[in-house]
Parts: sequence; C-alpha cells; structure tokens
Amino acid sequence: MDEFDLIRRFFSRDAESADTLVGVGDDGAVLEPTPGTRQVQVIDTLVEGVHFPANVNARDIGFRAVAVNLSDIAAMGATPRWMTLALTLWDKDEAWVQSFAAGLFEAAAEHGVALIGGDTTQGDSVVITVHVTGELEEGAEVLRSGARVGDTIFVSGTVGDAAAGLELLKEGIVDDDLARRFLRPTARVALGRQLSGRAHAAIDVSDGLVGDLRKLLDASGLGAELDIESVPLSNALLARFDIDSAIRFALTGGDDYELCFTAPADAVTGIGGITAIGKVSEVPGLVCRNKGEIVEVDDSGYRHFT
Amino acid sequence: MDEFDLIRRFFSRDAESADTLVGVGDDGAVLEPTPGTRQVQVIDTLVEGVHFPANVNARDIGFRAVAVNLSDIAAMGATPRWMTLALTLWDKDEAWVQSFAAGLFEAAAEHGVALIGGDTTQGDSVVITVHVTGELEEGAEVLRSGARVGDTIFVSGTVGDAAAGLELLKEGIVDDDLARRFLRPTARVALGRQLSGRAHAAIDVSDGLVGDLRKLLDASGLGAELDIESVPLSNALLARFDIDSAIRFALTGGDDYELCFTAPADAVTGIGGITAIGKVSEVPGLVCRNKGEIVEVDDSGYRHFT
Repeated sequence: MDEFDLIRRFFSRDAESADTLVGVGDDGAVLEPTPGTRQVQVIDTLVEGVHFPANVNARDIGFRAVAVNLSDIAAMGATPRWMTLALTLWDKDEAWVQSFAAGLFEAAAEHGVALIGGDTTQGDSVVITVHVTGELEEGAEVLRSGARVGDTIFVSGTVGDAAAGLELLKEGIVDDDLARRFLRPTARVALGRQLSGRAHAAIDVSDGLVGDLRKLLDASGLGAELDIESVPLSNALLARFDIDSAIRFALTGGDDYELCFTAPADAVTGIGGITAIGKVSEVPGLVCRNKGEIVEVDDSGYRHFT
Repeated sequence: MDEFDLIRRFFSRDAESADTLVGVGDDGAVLEPTPGTRQVQVIDTLVEGVHFPANVNARDIGFRAVAVNLSDIAAMGATPRWMTLALTLWDKDEAWVQSFAAGLFEAAAEHGVALIGGDTTQGDSVVITVHVTGELEEGAEVLRSGARVGDTIFVSGTVGDAAAGLELLKEGIVDDDLARRFLRPTARVALGRQLSGRAHAAIDVSDGLVGDLRKLLDASGLGAELDIESVPLSNALLARFDIDSAIRFALTGGDDYELCFTAPADAVTGIGGITAIGKVSEVPGLVCRNKGEIVEVDDSGYRHFT
C-alpha cells in the first residue's frame, strides 16, 4: 500500500466541524479554535531503520524528530508554539534517552517551542512521533492549493544534500557536511513566516523536489515547467558526486526540508536564500527541462524522452 | 527504565512559555492560546503485543486508540474536538486498515471529534499514536493536584473488568462482556464535563485504581484512606472470578478508563454512576482497609500487614 493512497482512501473523511478550515491533505491542519484565531497542527513519525539508519546517534534523532515537524509548520506559514512527544523504545538505555532528549530540546529551543506532554512506551522497535501546534493570523496560512498560473516556483537553500548524506550514512560515513544535512535539517520557520501573505502556495521538500512539487500542483489543479539547470546544488554535493547523481538527489531524493513555493516574482523581492526554478502553467502535469530539452524524471533520475 | 521515572528525569523541563498553564505530568496539558481561552492536549500510544494482544481485531484497535485519549481529555474536564493520527504499520493489509479506520471514526463520532491530519509509516511493528485537542472554559480544568483534605474519593462505573477481560483475551476468549470492557473502553467525557467546577482533582484509571490514585495524591501532596469493600465490582467480574481475584483486578489491573476523582461529598449530588470509595487525608500515603483492617496492596493483590 502506498502511503498517500492509504490516507486518501481510508482517512480523508471531511472533518465535520465548521472550525476545521483545512483537514487531512496539506502539510498541516488549520483550525479556528475561537473566531478570528488560527491554529496549525502537524504530526510526523520517525521509525528506526526506515527514516534513519540504526547507527545515527540519539541526539541527532531527537533533533530531527522535532525539525521535520517544524518544517511542516513552516510550510504553512505558521509559528510553532507547543509540542507533544510519543516515544516507543526498544533496547535503549538511559544514556540514549538522555541524549535523545538533549537533541529534542535543542531543536525546540531554537524556535521557542515548549514540550507540554507525551507518552513513553515499550515496543519491538524505536518509533518517535512528535505533534506540533503552531499559530498564525487569520487568513495568513499558505496552503498547497493556492498556486496561480504565472507564479514563479522557488525553492529555498539547496536540495539533494540530505539524500546524498543518507547514502553516505548508510556507508558508515557520519562526519560529513552532506550527512549533517540529513541529520540536522534546518526547518525554514523564518522563511515560512516571510512567505505568509506573499506566496500563493507552499510545501516542504520531504519526499523529493519533483514529487512534492507535483503534490502542490495537483492540490492547485495546475501544471508547471521546471528548469533543472536552475535547481540549486551545493558545492558539497557537487564535490562528492557527478552531476547526474547530484541532479538525481536534488530532484528525487527526500529529507531536504527546504520550502518549495509559488509566488508572483515581484512579491518575494528582498527574501534571501531562495532560487527561482520554474513557472506555474495552466497545462496539467509537470514538464521538466534540462538545457531547454524536455526530460522525464522518475526515481532513478532523469532521461531524455526517446 | 520505569516510564514515569524516565519522563520525570529527561522530559519534564518546565515549559518555557507563559501560555502553558499545565505541562508534562497531568493527564493532559492545559494551554491558553489566546487570553481567556483554554485548550487541553493529550497524546497516547498503543503498541501491538504490549497494549493489546495481536489477536484483537482492527476495528476494536481503532476504537481503543481514540477512546484512551478521550479518557485523558475527560479526566481534565474538557470537551474533545480534534484529533491527529500517527499510524506505523507492519504486515497489515488493506482490509485491516479499512477496519481500523472504521473503529477510529466510530469512537470519534460518538464525541463529535474530527480527524484533521496524520502520518502513516511502515515499521517492524504496529504502533498507533493519537493526539487529541480539547477545549474548556477558563479555570474549568480538573487537575491531579487539586485534592483537598476531607474530600471524598469517587470512582465511576466498575473497575477491574478490563484487566480481567485482557486475561480472557490472552486465552483466546473474545466474545465476553469483560473482554469487551477491555476492547471498547468508555471514555467518561460527559462525566468529566460534569466534574468541571465541582471536583477538586481527577485522573483516569489506566494503570490501575490504586496506582493512579497514588499519582493523584502525590500530585496533591496528600494521603488517603481507601475502603476496599466499597470499590464497585461488576456482576460479570464476580461471576467469572473469585472475590480475591476480582479485588486484585479492581485495585491493580489497568485499562478501565473510569475516572477517579476527589470532591466534597455534597458537590457531586445528582451525578449518577459514581461510587464513594474513600477519603482524602493530611497524612501522606494511601491506607487501604478491607473490612476495617489495614491491608497492603501491590501488583499481586492485597494482603494483611503481618
């Protein structure tokens, strides 16, 4: 079963309460607890061996479990405020828990987020779920569904580093800039706040740039052209991998936790650390071009149409 | 590592924000998102093989995952409103997920709770985490720490049934009233609302009546006398087990999800389905009496002091 298919088929009933403005299907839910207020809630799980290799140290895991949730909050344009933790443990000792907690509080403190509750359980594997509640002003949410024809598509930072770093980690290489991009993702909370009221649509890049951009376009009922040459690649990535591998990581690797968003080009003037990579169009589907030629992008990378 | 010890040592830093009124350590956290409003958040995890036997059907698991969280909301005196789900699956097929979702929505619909988001992941075991957000009026929360000397101690419904039912389930007996008490706990949401403003302290009975009452008393810095003969036992429990086993289940078995609370006796007049079982005293510690004699209660049951 595919995750998205499963959610759509079994869990995406319309929220029944009038004060749920956005339910299942965006980076986070948008609530109106009291008239005129907006709250954003997100929940994300990390499973050992699935979302991170077993050799990752506990402090990084704690940091990452919070950061991936803050990234969802950022993608909604909200400010994170409170979090709860559900921690299922297996074969871990006190030193592990202490180190995990240190990483958790480190990520939370960077954004002034308070741990308000949780549940710890014993299980057959390590499963970490964090729930974060954020706030924003009325009408300030940035959804996946708001893209408009003619919007420029932007991405923050550089992409592909985390997926490349994960490959290095699996080979046992921990002390590396790319590995650190995987272990210590930067949730773009400040950028998300800047985008509120300026960007039309946003999503965080957790499953890969092309896949996540497709989700944004599907939600908006639109298409786009993506210029592969414009996709920002880091020097660290280019130093360690050939250009084809680097582009494959950038387009289809996940875990970057950068923000991909659409906005009129002149609406984001003055916002730093972002790169224009394409344009939203009326024609459904995502057309990727490399040096002007249309190429096909799938999980194994990109290739010319034959 | 003991769960409570672990939480106290590593995760119970004081919440840093002024709008967190109650953080880690009660049944739920109490927030003040905007001045004059109160929100309660709870999170609870079920692990297959730990919190329920692998032979429990998916619909019951879905129902239970929601009900145990609604019970925490009830213990705070709040009204549940929204929930998110983190579902980690292993070796389950679509029929399982469909049935699980049916049970989840069934429990949610009973209390008008909307599923607003979630995350599904693959893992080595089945781990279900549900987060629920509730609401209450300013100052209406019922905490563990509010008990006062002279309060009467009450418990709702009957206790011990669920623990006895779990024992039956482990023997493969599913079609039984006691087993159903385990599989389909009744979250005492309506009672919790009635207690708001009337009870001084409350906790839900998830780990066992004596253990949970001790937590309430510790949080309140007080002691109590518990009259074992007054503890309400169901006919179903007494029909299947001898009196000593029944009392052992009632005092030390968990999973009842009844509410244990303290209040002046005349403050709860007119509230049905509750039984007085003891009195709060100034002397720290919980003194249990059976037929007037002091007895010692531990996980194996109760015995006379020698």
